[in-house]
Amino acid sequence: MTTLLGSPSLSALCRTIVASLIVLYGACASVAHPVDSLSREEIAAAVAVLREAGHIDAATRFALIDLDEPRKADVLAWKPADPFIRKAFIVARRDRTVYEAVVDLGARKVERWQAIPNVQSGLVDEELQDAERITKADPGWQEAVRKRGYTAFESLFCAAMSAGYFADPAEEGRRVVKVVCFDREGSRINWWSRPIEGLYAVVDLDEKRVLRLVDTGEAPVSREAHEFGDAIPPAPAAAAAKHSFTIDGGEVRWNKWSFHFRMGQRVGLILSLLRFEDQGRERMVLYRGSIAEMFVPYMDPDRGWSFRTFMDFGEYGAGLLSSPLMPGIDCPVDAAFVDVTLPNERGDPVSRKSPVCLFERATAAPLWRHTEVNGEFAGRAARELVVRTIPSLGNYDYIIDWVLTETGTLRIDVGATGIVEVKGVAARTMTDASAARDTAYGMLVAPNLTAVNHDHFVSLRLDVDIDGPANTLIRQRLVRQNLDRSGGRSSLWHVAEEPVVNEGPAGDEVWRIVNPNLTNRLGQHPGYELRGGHVAVSLLARDDFPQRRAAFSAAPLWITAYDPKELYAAGLYPNQSKGGDGLPAYAAQHRPITNADITLWYTMGFHHLPRPEDWPVLPTVWHSVSLVPYGFFDRNPAADGQGWDALRNSVK
Amino acid sequence: MTTLLGSPSLSALCRTIVASLIVLYGACASVAHPVDSLSREEIAAAVAVLREAGHIDAATRFALIDLDEPRKADVLAWKPADPFIRKAFIVARRDRTVYEAVVDLGARKVERWQAIPNVQSGLVDEELQDAERITKADPGWQEAVRKRGYTAFESLFCAAMSAGYFADPAEEGRRVVKVVCFDREGSRINWWSRPIEGLYAVVDLDEKRVLRLVDTGEAPVSREAHEFGDAIPPAPAAAAAKHSFTIDGGEVRWNKWSFHFRMGQRVGLILSLLRFEDQGRERMVLYRGSIAEMFVPYMDPDRGWSFRTFMDFGEYGAGLLSSPLMPGIDCPVDAAFVDVTLPNERGDPVSRKSPVCLFERATAAPLWRHTEVNGEFAGRAARELVVRTIPSLGNYDYIIDWVLTETGTLRIDVGATGIVEVKGVAARTMTDASAARDTAYGMLVAPNLTAVNHDHFVSLRLDVDIDGPANTLIRQRLVRQNLDRSGGRSSLWHVAEEPVVNEGPAGDEVWRIVNPNLTNRLGQHPGYELRGGHVAVSLLARDDFPQRRAAFSAAPLWITAYDPKELYAAGLYPNQSKGGDGLPAYAAQHRPITNADITLWYTMGFHHLPRPEDWPVLPTVWHSVSLVPYGFFDRNPAADGQGWDALRNSVK
Repeated sequence: MTTLLGSPSLSALCRTIVASLIVLYGACASVAHPVDSLSREEIAAAVAVLREAGHIDAATRFALIDLDEPRKADVLAWKPADPFIRKAFIVARRDRTVYEAVVDLGARKVERWQAIPNVQSGLVDEELQDAERITKADPGWQEAVRKRGYTAFESLFCAAMSAGYFADPAEEGRRVVKVVCFDREGSRINWWSRPIEGLYAVVDLDEKRVLRLVDTGEAPVSREAHEFGDAIPPAPAAAAAKHSFTIDGGEVRWNKWSFHFRMGQRVGLILSLLRFEDQGRERMVLYRGSIAEMFVPYMDPDRGWSFRTFMDFGEYGAGLLSSPLMPGIDCPVDAAFVDVTLPNERGDPVSRKSPVCLFERATAAPLWRHTEVNGEFAGRAARELVVRTIPSLGNYDYIIDWVLTETGTLRIDVGATGIVEVKGVAARTMTDASAARDTAYGMLVAPNLTAVNHDHFVSLRLDVDIDGPANTLIRQRLVRQNLDRSGGRSSLWHVAEEPVVNEGPAGDEVWRIVNPNLTNRLGQHPGYELRGGHVAVSLLARDDFPQRRAAFSAAPLWITAYDPKELYAAGLYPNQSKGGDGLPAYAAQHRPITNADITLWYTMGFHHLPRPEDWPVLPTVWHSVSLVPYGFFDRNPAADGQGWDALRNSVK
Repeated sequence: MTTLLGSPSLSALCRTIVASLIVLYGACASVAHPVDSLSREEIAAAVAVLREAGHIDAATRFALIDLDEPRKADVLAWKPADPFIRKAFIVARRDRTVYEAVVDLGARKVERWQAIPNVQSGLVDEELQDAERITKADPGWQEAVRKRGYTAFESLFCAAMSAGYFADPAEEGRRVVKVVCFDREGSRINWWSRPIEGLYAVVDLDEKRVLRLVDTGEAPVSREAHEFGDAIPPAPAAAAAKHSFTIDGGEVRWNKWSFHFRMGQRVGLILSLLRFEDQGRERMVLYRGSIAEMFVPYMDPDRGWSFRTFMDFGEYGAGLLSSPLMPGIDCPVDAAFVDVTLPNERGDPVSRKSPVCLFERATAAPLWRHTEVNGEFAGRAARELVVRTIPSLGNYDYIIDWVLTETGTLRIDVGATGIVEVKGVAARTMTDASAARDTAYGMLVAPNLTAVNHDHFVSLRLDVDIDGPANTLIRQRLVRQNLDRSGGRSSLWHVAEEPVVNEGPAGDEVWRIVNPNLTNRLGQHPGYELRGGHVAVSLLARDDFPQRRAAFSAAPLWITAYDPKELYAAGLYPNQSKGGDGLPAYAAQHRPITNADITLWYTMGFHHLPRPEDWPVLPTVWHSVSLVPYGFFDRNPAADGQGWDALRNSVK
């Protein structure tokens, strides 16, 4: 036997068996569902495999370590307990070069390791810290702030702002941020309220030095206190609440809905496999939905402001910046709070306490109701399920709610709160001589502080799959029709519809996405309407660099063919990008999009003209978009009396 | 002494004293507040005074007996316990003539009694009942329904629809309705689901006969059941709940808000004297707000449909048709439910059980929140006060919420629910031969039933008074500005603003109403923004009769000078009106509107393309408009930590 074991061929066989077992173990044991987030072990494995392969070193930093989006067909074919090949997608930076990698986590194999020239990966926390330290250590900067009366720098806070791109030869090819500092003396909660205006440092993150100091002159620094709210003691652990929904790993069931959620390192919450149970059938509505980018351009031509054209999700990432949610304030005390694990820039898995909450909300209004002519009544109180995250992206906090209703609607509510970005100005009131100039691009919110006008454009990537992937987008227009006046009326409107056949932006009308291969009991193609609210699009010139980089913001809706690698409205590398990537590139492929697997990209936009009431903390401004069933069901799926209430009561 | 008393002069003096006492009693005792609804006694007094004056007889019917809107200056000058001259405004119909009357209730004096030629007052319940009876008794109609297989008529429901106006000589000068019948056999809650299509009767309400029977041919009558919901037993009286608001007569206090509410016979809920307490000052925001009209035109050229161009508030009235609100479904069980008294068409005061509810709602979201860069947190859970009524106007139920937030915003949410109006058609599914024709103007919602496309235009009359009556409407536009590219950016937008100087429709931009005579601490004029959602306006031809009658629906906003008699967007008499009245007439006066007392009229519009999921009962479709403070406050008025929560806790 010992000889047998010692034989080279058998030894090879054993190694193969052992390797296979490792592969099987990796595939089976570490994951509950194909679209789960990477586990702690998987994050560690991804990094270890790259290290073992010699691709990375101790100085390598990771902008992204995320689940490599699996093929839809594989996910849909998967059944619980089936093995599934899990992969990690990695964006790493080593020796000033960005690399993309795909690691097969089961096989512990590097599938791809590829240098990507001429791009900048997203900023990581270490770099933000570095930028502050580098700036504060710079003698020129020290001189400039001394001139402004600061002799000690500990109570100054320096924010590393993404640099944007403006074809500046001095910045070309370099990894830069633009650092703006604030006096946070005595401030607990509002570090943004006393900008040291007229001064910023362009920091080269690789050379770890100030590349250029821009000092356009002093403005008074606000001396008022701009604090708000009270410090709140850590909330007691919420008592184990009885919920009307179940959470099993990443899978949630509520009412007739089921879905999967995970936290993405870059885009934040990802909702997938959203299905509605309709008379015993689990029917797909949305294969995957997430935010795809956000564009926040400021509207002041001042040198210290005109570069502020943020794309927060791609430049900073929403995952690690998602706030721990405060019971009783951010979410009801009896919500379910979910912890997550995410990789940091060193590739270490870190735990985050409750950045996700789920709860059922009573809207205090009827889902539907009717009083008949004779006084008979029927009605049902509405309830909805909310899945919430709140990325705190610097000064702003974005409340992102995925909301399910009992009538088959998915609504995405985005609420902006936090602190509006203010500029230090000379004017204390509008009667001051400089007031008109100081408020030409914003509104005075406190003496010496102008909140600058800006936009928020949130791009949502919605891979809608109505009863499966083969869908068509129908654009409906309401057209006036003139009538022969003999009938009394001379006009009405009717609906003209046509399929959208080209990838790219789609006009602002009524959008319906249908499955042309199926019919409901009335012979209509099952569909959903994408119903936006007030649609604001970007007013910047098309060829302006910020607009080229965030081209998605020029239209309320884009449509592309499905590609699991096409996830970001402004591309994978928006940091310092020159534009052209993302939706314009995706749409340029001219792929067929009728009766095909398509992806919708909705731009939720609003122009923000700040007001004093937005200071020192912005009352939440909400915007919404909904996917509303249109012929998906044969009838109102929740018109069945008090059935759901009865169900709820039995759950309690 | 007896002689003294018997002397003619003293007797006259005594009569004068007694009369004065009666006047004083009338002025003082019967009313708590100048803008309270007419009391039971006042309604009775108004009718009695007209009867004593010989103006009315037993056959006179009242379309309106309402508080005669008092002069604003008088209301503002009034203090509790002051006397106040209360008057009733009456629209009566006697011997086929409409009269307007004003009765001084204190003096028991007819101030005005005036015949109004060539108008039709709104329909009253008795007429709706008459119309059904007259139709069913008509031999021609009986023959037509017998042909359709009906031999008994008890289980048919006939709805008297407002006739509209189409220059039809046969209807000219007559008081008509158009009566459409439905098979309600076995139906508890959906009397609208089985229309007897292709047949309607034009009923002359004065001659009490069918003027014309329109029979365009049979369509199958749906045989399915279209019921929904369960019969719900009368709710138990809600336990006396402890509220965070107080109701004192018509006056409500919540948080820093105070206001008055009353129920109008025609427009439903009227909110007035809305003030916000700001650092000890009670500051006016809205003097008076209510719905001013609603226009619901259907979009089918069929003879039985093209006349359906309803103006529900003026044609039917929202007061008496406001539903009793069901605790736990229409409003939370712990809401405050308010009973009201309203006059019926005979001038009798009738009590209505709980058509108004008020409650505080936790939105389950932060009013504002922020997580600072270092993890420090502040936030506050949002609460709002809701004042709700639900007029059930035939098939539709409109949930009308006046919502106050802690940050000084007033939001009006209108939710449409109830039953969509359906047309009987031959098609059972879209594969039937007639399907394309049968659904050219709507969507099949069940076999043999097409829900017809239509619009809802809700006109809101908002007498905004920012810190008093003298206000100016500012229209702001976002204008692209091109920059010298040397700074990097080539474009941005800035805000161009101008006062609106002409009465009439105002373009769809950013609307701010300011008090140009005052400034906040920053030297800005205190103001509010009127922030609409998605704005839909009417697509009908301008010269089409329905559009002439509802001209308000062509623009999202109108502005007029204040006149307490100008209350209705389509005029006081929209029933069978020819157009021109209401906003076009009000605005044609070319009154000054800058730094003046002005009234805003907002059109909340939406195009309704029904879907099967709207059947048999429509999931509530919500639309909103808000008045948001802009420079009204010096800062966020609710940024003060947990103060409000502390207050609430002390209230409990």
